[in-house]
Amino acid sequence: MDSTASLWEKFQKYLVAYEDLEFSLDISRMRFADDFLARMKPEADRAFREMAELETGAIANADEQRMVGHYWLRNPQLAPNQEIRADIEKTNARIRQFASDVHSGSIAPASGKKFAHILLIGIGGSALGPQFVADALGSAKDPSNIFFFDNTDPDGFDRVFEKIGDGIATTLVVVISKSGGTKETRNGMLEAQARFETAGLNFGKHAVAVTGPGSELDKFAAQHNWLARFPMHDWVGGRTSVMSAVGLVPAALLGFAIDDFLAGAATMDAHTRAPEVRKNAAMLLALMWYHAGNGRGEKDMVILPYKDRLALFSRYLQQLVMESLGKEKDRDGKIVHQGIAVYGNKGSTDQHAYVQQLRDGVPNFFVTFIEVAKDRSGPAFDVEEGITSGDYLHGFLRGTRAALYEKDRESITISIPEVNAFQIGSLIALYERAVGFYGSLVNVNAYHQPGVEAGKKAATRLLELQSRVRQALPQAPGQTSEQLAQAVNASAEDVFHVLRHLVANDHAVGSDSNVRPSQEKFFLR
Amino acid sequence: MDSTASLWEKFQKYLVAYEDLEFSLDISRMRFADDFLARMKPEADRAFREMAELETGAIANADEQRMVGHYWLRNPQLAPNQEIRADIEKTNARIRQFASDVHSGSIAPASGKKFAHILLIGIGGSALGPQFVADALGSAKDPSNIFFFDNTDPDGFDRVFEKIGDGIATTLVVVISKSGGTKETRNGMLEAQARFETAGLNFGKHAVAVTGPGSELDKFAAQHNWLARFPMHDWVGGRTSVMSAVGLVPAALLGFAIDDFLAGAATMDAHTRAPEVRKNAAMLLALMWYHAGNGRGEKDMVILPYKDRLALFSRYLQQLVMESLGKEKDRDGKIVHQGIAVYGNKGSTDQHAYVQQLRDGVPNFFVTFIEVAKDRSGPAFDVEEGITSGDYLHGFLRGTRAALYEKDRESITISIPEVNAFQIGSLIALYERAVGFYGSLVNVNAYHQPGVEAGKKAATRLLELQSRVRQALPQAPGQTSEQLAQAVNASAEDVFHVLRHLVANDHAVGSDSNVRPSQEKFFLR
Repeated sequence: MDSTASLWEKFQKYLVAYEDLEFSLDISRMRFADDFLARMKPEADRAFREMAELETGAIANADEQRMVGHYWLRNPQLAPNQEIRADIEKTNARIRQFASDVHSGSIAPASGKKFAHILLIGIGGSALGPQFVADALGSAKDPSNIFFFDNTDPDGFDRVFEKIGDGIATTLVVVISKSGGTKETRNGMLEAQARFETAGLNFGKHAVAVTGPGSELDKFAAQHNWLARFPMHDWVGGRTSVMSAVGLVPAALLGFAIDDFLAGAATMDAHTRAPEVRKNAAMLLALMWYHAGNGRGEKDMVILPYKDRLALFSRYLQQLVMESLGKEKDRDGKIVHQGIAVYGNKGSTDQHAYVQQLRDGVPNFFVTFIEVAKDRSGPAFDVEEGITSGDYLHGFLRGTRAALYEKDRESITISIPEVNAFQIGSLIALYERAVGFYGSLVNVNAYHQPGVEAGKKAATRLLELQSRVRQALPQAPGQTSEQLAQAVNASAEDVFHVLRHLVANDHAVGSDSNVRPSQEKFFLR
Repeated sequence: MDSTASLWEKFQKYLVAYEDLEFSLDISRMRFADDFLARMKPEADRAFREMAELETGAIANADEQRMVGHYWLRNPQLAPNQEIRADIEKTNARIRQFASDVHSGSIAPASGKKFAHILLIGIGGSALGPQFVADALGSAKDPSNIFFFDNTDPDGFDRVFEKIGDGIATTLVVVISKSGGTKETRNGMLEAQARFETAGLNFGKHAVAVTGPGSELDKFAAQHNWLARFPMHDWVGGRTSVMSAVGLVPAALLGFAIDDFLAGAATMDAHTRAPEVRKNAAMLLALMWYHAGNGRGEKDMVILPYKDRLALFSRYLQQLVMESLGKEKDRDGKIVHQGIAVYGNKGSTDQHAYVQQLRDGVPNFFVTFIEVAKDRSGPAFDVEEGITSGDYLHGFLRGTRAALYEKDRESITISIPEVNAFQIGSLIALYERAVGFYGSLVNVNAYHQPGVEAGKKAATRLLELQSRVRQALPQAPGQTSEQLAQAVNASAEDVFHVLRHLVANDHAVGSDSNVRPSQEKFFLR
């Protein structure tokens, strides 16, 4: 066990503190070897070079032959050409104006009242950023509240509209899809549109699109005279789109300080662009991930912010980290099965859920503690003499960190002064760059997602099968799934599941509910 | 790769279906060896025996010398003595009556209106069950909505009260703590009490306690004439308390069918009590976990319910699984570092977040898909001709399952007919028993949590240190943390962090904000 004196020394030796951000990164509880940073210098230098190329407009996503430009969104000066730069500035100006018009009521629903609710329809990168930011920065004083359709669950749609209730008349719908063809989002939009029509409202007068110019969604929105369309360019990836219109439109509508949000990110970018390992928080983060999991993702990343407002950060990072780094092949085509699993909610809450396992159980993780220095905006309240709830929160963070370290469980500690738009911007920028660096360190392409298509294609095949099976269904007493499978030339198991789903949801399809799958007969009523 | 025919055969061979529950468990996508179940029979039989002893009142938690009786809560006939049986029945009757009185308005706040909001104050097992159940079963038509204090974050408290707003006058506070001494809950209660007093309301007339008879909280509630006190007995563990007053009080207040909830659990218990591996869904689950992680937790458990209402199930399971199984020593005292990490949110949403890594990346997990047969209560809506949003949801589940299996990623599929109180009860009961069985299989005590104390103790030491350091603080120009550490005989690092926290939150404490920790001077203003 290290002495407290040597830990204090290690803390100071490796501490990265950015005064303007009141940010610090403490890696003293990671047990890396003394020469680790020096040993990793060549890889780190390569990562710095690759990032510099990316930032100047290199084709980083070779698969899709596109640039990766999320860093330009908060510093348009960096954009590789005048066109992109002007586009960012123009889009952001239009977003500010649009939000201002909505807030003032000059853009308003037919009722004449102001828009008071937002329904955001999007999934993955088109929802996780807005959800995290809305939860982190939201307050009861915001000009609007926000609801999400982030799935294709019919009951989920019903439930949101039940919550919105009569508020539908003052609901602004923001539909977000880069490709404009994401089925979950398309389904949510169609369901929402039907609801508005049933309520006698003109959907287009309540709708805004954020999508790739020229996409299906873009055309649909133009054709139906939606209130506005904002672009999502091919040089912005879904998981790094929160500072494009994807994140800025909802944030501005919610009344958040989007310029602070961008400035926070730009400030963090400036610090973490400098190619000096020991002063670069993003590189140190990436190197600590590398150290923890031997560069092979052997340890899960547990994210524990001690602040309720940051509870969704881990969900945001699940996409950013896992979709970026979870790759089968490295950039040379070698099979590597990379990635880092991410989970966590918040402290001290999670201490009462699974810190038992973290301290005593399977040592397959490292923790990132996130400390927020400021306890609350209002006056302090003592729960004991001279002790506040916030003192407890801080005590639990430090106590848990110590208890884990004592048992050889490693952790990183990030400190930020408070949760505001500036800080959230900087935190996101930190992780975006750390993920990019880590991709270079382990030699994977962090900017594509080749593995997501197979499931979608298999789903499409199943839906086609469903239509064919339904058409092939005879009257009672019906046929077994094996018989029907032969008729439509498909697997009996797929046919069985499709039929069970129809029986549960399509009143015209029945079965004799035999408990043995191979015996159950399906029929049209 | 297996042929579709052999998969159809395997599906049927191992399918467990409970007709009365319309439940099924499909383990055809787990690649266990043909003789695996036979090989594990001795361990499975031991687990059955141990569970039978537990259910008849054996001292299962040897550490704390107590029985483990959550199975009695839904079937009081099984309780080992008349006293416990009568207590369960009486408590449940009192809960029904209390909720009925609140709903009718015969128990009402001073304003004369009915209670319309619940504020539940609890953490860990005193919050995760109620949160999961409220989110799974809640609707806009419920007699009340619910807010949670599940942490000791001052800003989190402020934020909830900001949302409640004027509703405070019709808010019923349910304070839940088994020991009655959990600091987060105590702090939340004190903060809430102060809010009520500031609003000119008598807190006791708005408050209910669920706690161990005779606990600090129980005494406090009695002394201040709270509306009601419900018992939480020592034979109920926090993580299996959702069918005690802990879960039933909020569920009944929200208007949920608590008798259905208990009946669903009792029905699943009856099926999974039978000591026959091939027909026992809980045992098969436990065995599949064992198979997946070699009985050493080598694979993370990814929980993917394809239903918005089940999005919190993984958080609930994080505690149930990780706190139960994450143990340093086995029951013979051997160091084993057991446990299974749990994460996940919902499908198809998570497909757009991290299925990229699941399919292509580090193969350190197995998935549990949860299918809900019924898409929605209302009429179907076609998003394409003859295709609904729910057909897509089902297609994505099957498609993702196939895409993962193709790449050798294993999965379990659970199907339930719909999300209602009965089904949620049965799902919880299934996992409670599976966790108990797995504990036996790997020979750990699933009913204690020895690892959670160290962090709390370290936190207490830090709070004591904070008081001492604050008292030792000199006037400006102040002293460094090293100097102060010497004065109070503590580690300079701890002193530094305590002081930084004070500077951020205690207006009387200042520093010269030197960026070098060892140079920064702290003082009393």
